[in-house]
Amino acid sequence: MRNFNEETITEAVLARFADAPSPRIKLISEALVRHLHAFAREVRPSQTEWESGIDFLTRTGQMCSPTRQEFILLSDALGVSMLVDAINHPLPMGATETTVLGPFYVDDPPEFPLGANISGGKEGKALFVEGTVKATDGTPIAGAWVDTWHADAEGYYDVQLSDVPELDMRARLRTDDQGRFWYKSIVPAYYPIPADGPVGQMLAAQGRHPYRPAHVHFMIGAPHFETLITHVFLDGDPYLDSDVVFGVKDSLIRGLGEVGPGTTPEGHEVDETASLLTYHFVLAPEKHLARYA
Amino acid sequence: MRNFNEETITEAVLARFADAPSPRIKLISEALVRHLHAFAREVRPSQTEWESGIDFLTRTGQMCSPTRQEFILLSDALGVSMLVDAINHPLPMGATETTVLGPFYVDDPPEFPLGANISGGKEGKALFVEGTVKATDGTPIAGAWVDTWHADAEGYYDVQLSDVPELDMRARLRTDDQGRFWYKSIVPAYYPIPADGPVGQMLAAQGRHPYRPAHVHFMIGAPHFETLITHVFLDGDPYLDSDVVFGVKDSLIRGLGEVGPGTTPEGHEVDETASLLTYHFVLAPEKHLARYA
Repeated sequence: MRNFNEETITEAVLARFADAPSPRIKLISEALVRHLHAFAREVRPSQTEWESGIDFLTRTGQMCSPTRQEFILLSDALGVSMLVDAINHPLPMGATETTVLGPFYVDDPPEFPLGANISGGKEGKALFVEGTVKATDGTPIAGAWVDTWHADAEGYYDVQLSDVPELDMRARLRTDDQGRFWYKSIVPAYYPIPADGPVGQMLAAQGRHPYRPAHVHFMIGAPHFETLITHVFLDGDPYLDSDVVFGVKDSLIRGLGEVGPGTTPEGHEVDETASLLTYHFVLAPEKHLARYA
Repeated sequence: MRNFNEETITEAVLARFADAPSPRIKLISEALVRHLHAFAREVRPSQTEWESGIDFLTRTGQMCSPTRQEFILLSDALGVSMLVDAINHPLPMGATETTVLGPFYVDDPPEFPLGANISGGKEGKALFVEGTVKATDGTPIAGAWVDTWHADAEGYYDVQLSDVPELDMRARLRTDDQGRFWYKSIVPAYYPIPADGPVGQMLAAQGRHPYRPAHVHFMIGAPHFETLITHVFLDGDPYLDSDVVFGVKDSLIRGLGEVGPGTTPEGHEVDETASLLTYHFVLAPEKHLARYA
């Protein structure tokens, strides 16, 4: 096959996938080529624009490091991450809603005992976080792992603060036998996603601000349950309606209370005045992986 | 705006481009999001597949170096480069057809006088290349720059052969006052595109071979003419009908002749036996950039 033109090249490329060993990879490859070619036929990029696109993708890849994932940022800022999230999480009644992972998750975060202060001495208003992890029928889930991470009072994550970062404001906890978890930290601020790379340039070119409303990340898992990836957003934030990554859901917003010195609503002792953030998470039962198993 | 679902998120993202300063960037951003979201809705990637996609793009960017452009390879292997080429080159009657740039072009290649041997001493069957550069009305174009580059007898380009490459089998020539050019080198072989990176993994997963038929690259320019990016393919190659980057056009295939010692058909003296490759290029007149000027 030779002499392809603007119309015939798409079928020619699709024909090359005839011998793909995996039907799933064949399907993804075919859809990718159809949509990518349709995009090109619609915008009709000049050679220079195509070169700019190649350069943009190259710089996006080269901005990635063990503590910075610029392609996740790009997916987030184009709404693809939340779309994939929506596709994968048609949730049962009562389960906690999901949102984006974001680019700052670190595998195997430091383990802390319940009640620990995970702020690593970072300055900011004291925060006490408490809640529970339960099944949709209300049964507490004991021993669930609760990964939590958040920005500091200036809006920076630990991994952004130095080249050899200490992991602060980041922890793995385990729920107690009543499915409860609690810890101390500092109140996070809203912040711009890292704007010193290709994604920041894209947002500027699109006339968009780079801000995310203040939030605390959670990834929560337990045997026989779907792992939950979500945030809890702080009520009153000016960016709740224009989150640059489209992640806000009303059910994930909570107001900050005030607590201490004394006992919290969930029965934990607090020895100083702190803002109080409470969220009761509900995990969906694990899905059977029938479709592509 | 909050609480986006699989259907509503696309409009929400498009609405964010309302203040884009450049109408062209607004149009490209809107089309990108529509097609990208349609792709995701069609293939319904699992979270793990989305992570694989992020990882693939990241590794593709990180494979790029001053002498390796993995995103161009990806664009080539998905037929996007030839599609963009087709979109941009509806050519006037008689002009030489175009094909992909490929990932091995080097800016400002070494200048050589007409007739020079550009092989840098690389081993292989001697090749004598000659031709002309003319306008569509047949007028010779004197002083056109002719960049040419090709693989060696094993199918490797100079920039693949060492970490600090010498630039061989690569030259910038200038046509003489009759629009002629000629040089000596070695006969290139067919070759696999670099298969040790993400694009190679993709081709394997798609059940495709990585080969390109043997060819010599040309980029030719002159004031008042469109710069021509093309190859001349060697007739008889086993991969002419399955070029991994879809670049072959019948009008760009030429058989190798035999010449020397003696005078070539174009009147040049050759002091040894060599394969002879002849191509007469025709440049299209420069387009007026009316659309987005």
